[in-house]
Amino acid sequence: MSSSHTPIKVGIVGGTGYTGVELLRLLSQHPNVKLTAITSRKESGVLVADMYPNLRGKVDLAFCTPEQANLTSCDVVFFATPHGVAMSQAKELLAANVKIIDLAADFRLQDTAVFEHWYKMPHACPDILADSVYGLPELNREAIAGAKVVGNPGCYPTTVLLGLAPLLKPNVLIDTKDIIADSKSGVSGAGRGASVGSLFSEVSDSFKAYGVSGHRHHPEIKAQLDLLANASVNLTFVPHLVPMVRGMLSTLYVKLLPGAQGVDLQALYEHFYANETFVDVMPAGSLPETRSVRASNQLRLALHRPPGHPDRLIVLAIQDNLVKGASGQAVQNMNLMFGLPEATGLSQVAILP
Amino acid sequence: MSSSHTPIKVGIVGGTGYTGVELLRLLSQHPNVKLTAITSRKESGVLVADMYPNLRGKVDLAFCTPEQANLTSCDVVFFATPHGVAMSQAKELLAANVKIIDLAADFRLQDTAVFEHWYKMPHACPDILADSVYGLPELNREAIAGAKVVGNPGCYPTTVLLGLAPLLKPNVLIDTKDIIADSKSGVSGAGRGASVGSLFSEVSDSFKAYGVSGHRHHPEIKAQLDLLANASVNLTFVPHLVPMVRGMLSTLYVKLLPGAQGVDLQALYEHFYANETFVDVMPAGSLPETRSVRASNQLRLALHRPPGHPDRLIVLAIQDNLVKGASGQAVQNMNLMFGLPEATGLSQVAILP
Amino acid sequence: MSSSHTPIKVGIVGGTGYTGVELLRLLSQHPNVKLTAITSRKESGVLVADMYPNLRGKVDLAFCTPEQANLTSCDVVFFATPHGVAMSQAKELLAANVKIIDLAADFRLQDTAVFEHWYKMPHACPDILADSVYGLPELNREAIAGAKVVGNPGCYPTTVLLGLAPLLKPNVLIDTKDIIADSKSGVSGAGRGASVGSLFSEVSDSFKAYGVSGHRHHPEIKAQLDLLANASVNLTFVPHLVPMVRGMLSTLYVKLLPGAQGVDLQALYEHFYANETFVDVMPAGSLPETRSVRASNQLRLALHRPPGHPDRLIVLAIQDNLVKGASGQAVQNMNLMFGLPEATGLSQVAILP
Amino acid sequence: MSSSHTPIKVGIVGGTGYTGVELLRLLSQHPNVKLTAITSRKESGVLVADMYPNLRGKVDLAFCTPEQANLTSCDVVFFATPHGVAMSQAKELLAANVKIIDLAADFRLQDTAVFEHWYKMPHACPDILADSVYGLPELNREAIAGAKVVGNPGCYPTTVLLGLAPLLKPNVLIDTKDIIADSKSGVSGAGRGASVGSLFSEVSDSFKAYGVSGHRHHPEIKAQLDLLANASVNLTFVPHLVPMVRGMLSTLYVKLLPGAQGVDLQALYEHFYANETFVDVMPAGSLPETRSVRASNQLRLALHRPPGHPDRLIVLAIQDNLVKGASGQAVQNMNLMFGLPEATGLSQVAILP
Repeated sequence: MSSSHTPIKVGIVGGTGYTGVELLRLLSQHPNVKLTAITSRKESGVLVADMYPNLRGKVDLAFCTPEQANLTSCDVVFFATPHGVAMSQAKELLAANVKIIDLAADFRLQDTAVFEHWYKMPHACPDILADSVYGLPELNREAIAGAKVVGNPGCYPTTVLLGLAPLLKPNVLIDTKDIIADSKSGVSGAGRGASVGSLFSEVSDSFKAYGVSGHRHHPEIKAQLDLLANASVNLTFVPHLVPMVRGMLSTLYVKLLPGAQGVDLQALYEHFYANETFVDVMPAGSLPETRSVRASNQLRLALHRPPGHPDRLIVLAIQDNLVKGASGQAVQNMNLMFGLPEATGLSQVAILP
Repeated sequence: MSSSHTPIKVGIVGGTGYTGVELLRLLSQHPNVKLTAITSRKESGVLVADMYPNLRGKVDLAFCTPEQANLTSCDVVFFATPHGVAMSQAKELLAANVKIIDLAADFRLQDTAVFEHWYKMPHACPDILADSVYGLPELNREAIAGAKVVGNPGCYPTTVLLGLAPLLKPNVLIDTKDIIADSKSGVSGAGRGASVGSLFSEVSDSFKAYGVSGHRHHPEIKAQLDLLANASVNLTFVPHLVPMVRGMLSTLYVKLLPGAQGVDLQALYEHFYANETFVDVMPAGSLPETRSVRASNQLRLALHRPPGHPDRLIVLAIQDNLVKGASGQAVQNMNLMFGLPEATGLSQVAILP
Repeated sequence: MSSSHTPIKVGIVGGTGYTGVELLRLLSQHPNVKLTAITSRKESGVLVADMYPNLRGKVDLAFCTPEQANLTSCDVVFFATPHGVAMSQAKELLAANVKIIDLAADFRLQDTAVFEHWYKMPHACPDILADSVYGLPELNREAIAGAKVVGNPGCYPTTVLLGLAPLLKPNVLIDTKDIIADSKSGVSGAGRGASVGSLFSEVSDSFKAYGVSGHRHHPEIKAQLDLLANASVNLTFVPHLVPMVRGMLSTLYVKLLPGAQGVDLQALYEHFYANETFVDVMPAGSLPETRSVRASNQLRLALHRPPGHPDRLIVLAIQDNLVKGASGQAVQNMNLMFGLPEATGLSQVAILP
Repeated sequence: MSSSHTPIKVGIVGGTGYTGVELLRLLSQHPNVKLTAITSRKESGVLVADMYPNLRGKVDLAFCTPEQANLTSCDVVFFATPHGVAMSQAKELLAANVKIIDLAADFRLQDTAVFEHWYKMPHACPDILADSVYGLPELNREAIAGAKVVGNPGCYPTTVLLGLAPLLKPNVLIDTKDIIADSKSGVSGAGRGASVGSLFSEVSDSFKAYGVSGHRHHPEIKAQLDLLANASVNLTFVPHLVPMVRGMLSTLYVKLLPGAQGVDLQALYEHFYANETFVDVMPAGSLPETRSVRASNQLRLALHRPPGHPDRLIVLAIQDNLVKGASGQAVQNMNLMFGLPEATGLSQVAILP
């Protein structure tokens, strides 16, 4: 456990993207963290605060090369990189007793064949993968606390899994062969890479579905749902792009089985998440807005029984895709891995309006 | 039939809202129309172009009171008013042989009990309602051509009905007890009334579902689906609010029945809409963006068979909620009612970007 | 001075607007504050977190009536109300030894004739006004520390005054008869009142100037500039509305006098603000973006000498209009009034992206 | 003059950017035009409507290589290309008697040294440049009608020049050594190239100035102002980026000379533009919104005499940067060059909301 006298030495690999700057925002305000290095081969030498002026006066580090970073002297390294980077450096870091939290997909999928199919690369360290933990604290808290390597979940999976988990555990409540996740995300989920499809003039004042014929988060969600349900589920997953920067809402449609009759589903959810700081089960019938979690680590859920469909249950799940859907959850995982109170450094109130 | 020497004399009741200004935009460019009066008791005397400066130099009328408007001398009157206004004036106009196109809900629901339940007012003229026609040209073209009173469809219903109609006609393709419409609309659908919920600072950079526990368009969609399917369907309908001005996308989820095996659904749709100017069946797997129909009367459809769910069909349907979802469709109905080519005055290319 | 054992008892009058919810966000995270009452006659009995779901789990107060609030037992009361409310309650609160911070205009203008001209009401307490302090800490720190009543500056004035103050003090650098402030604000500055002009569909994807023929902040800016310059300045002030929620940028145009020749203006600014936590003088030629201060109390400045105009100096000034331009500055004033370190509770990093 | 039997054969070089698709939108609806070729080496073979789905059913051409395009058989070729392309092809086209309208900067600046300084390339055809005409129809109508090569103005220059022209002609009204143009543009002005700076997540909900230390439109504006004033003016020009797709507003600040006393400036403007279809002088004190010209070729002006500055005049000028600021103006120029009524194909009503 970290005391106030020995802060956690943190390195960040690839801090130039949106999950990187969000990590910097959170970690620079974390009372138990000392940021020691942020790598970017391309921006090496550039002050972090010159690239991200919101950090002026808050972070005085410059980006450095991996060689300069001396990451093996850190206590933990976050990878805010493209897929494939963390797995290529994991072995060396683990040998130096450095913990790893990967915000990309290298440690999310235990089935390497599935990983290789969707990410178009062989997995570099199946043995390390086998020992890694899927970093969804509300479902895997104990394993994360003891993990050396955590695969931080994808943004969409976080909403779908936390939105459905209470229904799957009992296993007789819903038809696991008939699950639909109609998800909507802000544009920051596409990252900071220069691409025509993410230009303001392309996405502003417009709306579309994408990835309908197959999205990388589909196998990730399905794998975890299968584990929760102890069965192979059928999942339809359709992501959509919303002209907003941050925020994600998943509208989850499930079919209740006769076993759900008489079950107080609202109470089930409230009980399931009763001790969770970051999951807010709103009163039944609530209409959560993504702005109510903007820049915070909260995820909010609301249950609905719609008219016109007797056996239908709808779960609405919202989060900030960059916080609970990425960097905030990564810090939550770090807190667990170092024995800190889980909410340390994550108590910010959401920004509204 | 109207010749170029005798334009259609058009009156608009309640032209101060967004469907009103959109009617003015379209009708001011329509080659066979003479705008004769636009009423607004509140704005009486104000030049239309002072309220809507996009019409400067294009429309020189002022708003007038209903008394000044002399609507009984028109050939057709559009009601771009709150619900309840058209039905209170229908009898007098019909007596004067004036045709009526109501953009509100007074003539959308044949079941007056359903109307009264959802719109919280008795229906003022059930007999006229019984003779009115639901103004969805692609499904009701002949009846519209002969109608005296047309109930212009709601914006959401237009996307859902045109999105599903080809599947319902044959009646053995999908499970009509398991239809989901996850719909998303721009904010202009909420109208121009001053309300906190539609403020820029409330809806910008945020996303939410609304009306999950019941929306007025649910019974309208269901009534028409029932007619198409010749059965009572089960419909889950969840509207969402997108931070954009115009545009609507419905993601429609249906379950294919064994009868759909071997059916070329793409061909079915293309054939069904082969002669329709305003319905564009895109190639299978397309991802329509709402901006591709911005300010145009087009509605575009795309079919998807998603992975992970063997019997699932997804239909994506987009439109501009103010054009094909409201004022453009109203003009399309007018064209039919006066024997004009259906696309007259509606050939504008969508604005992109 | 407040110790950690005796928190400051804070009341908020009129907490339902955007400056109100922003005060709540900041004060709920302030280590030395105990929120004791939030009044709203209209929303009395409603939980604050039901109106502002970002505060769920953070603020458990309900709105109450002024009668229930027992404001005279507070140490300080913030008025996040329309103009005219604070001055009507000031006498009673002062009699009970309660300090006052008014976020409206009641204590901004020492000249009651000017106040009455622009705010269309007589001033209720000219004597209290005479003892009140204009709450711009960087210019009035000492007076604020001793004040009983602080008039929190308007959002526009904060940017213009801090943007120009270093130039006016020496008094021979710029032509005080030729000052232009071309200012741009996000929509939240217009408040949370239901008005057509602030609807998403009215302001999104559009831009305009407003108040060109006269804006209430003009006399406020001029009065303070006059004080700083010890002369009557000529000010052209043109505010504009930007389709964004938060943020403000003022582009300030001044004409350098011969006295400025040889003066290192960049050094002048850096020296002037050397000890200020919340004013960031960026390197000369910087292009500050409003998002770099979003949700933070920072104000950033950048100097430019443009081509094509030998004697022209441009100052760019940005802030979050709801934080440094309103509620954050109010908390900064509170800290000063209670002898706390000025930045207490105000160290949040700006949200980017 | 073109009759309805012999349409103008039009080629477009580089039709994949925003000015290209806007040309296609306008020309596809132009009654006297036959689109014969659209070149893009990179997208050769791709259907225009596959890249720009708003053109589905409206334009059936595919992009082709310059070699396939046979541009020498066209009557006119538009260049919607980066700077430098038009001048490299001008000689060959002119030899084939093809007229040229360049939407880039190759034919905007008569001083090749200035061109080379700002565009970092030598001018390829100074002789052709010498015969080319600056394509601002309201100021150069006769010359354009007789031109072989037209340099279509930049977006910013169009607003500033039309905003100030009436003041400069008489030459004794304003201080030409003290002109400020504080301009604001939507993001589409930055084009469709993939760049981080134009990403939705970078510019949405933010505002900034750019190019303060020098922008390419500065010398273009100054050169034309110098011509109009018959003197060398001093111009401060500061562009800003607005989080909207289309639209531009210039706030122009000038100092009135004693010669302006007693002059009815509003009447001066109204008279100056009395016969112009596309310039709308609004009543004095109007507050034009950019959305009132969205997707139309209108430019609107409004004059203001602000309080606080006795000799100050403010001119507000708005346009759609892609229409009157680019492609619409190009079509207007084409109409003039081919003896068509100037407004042919340009009568669209602006889209509001």
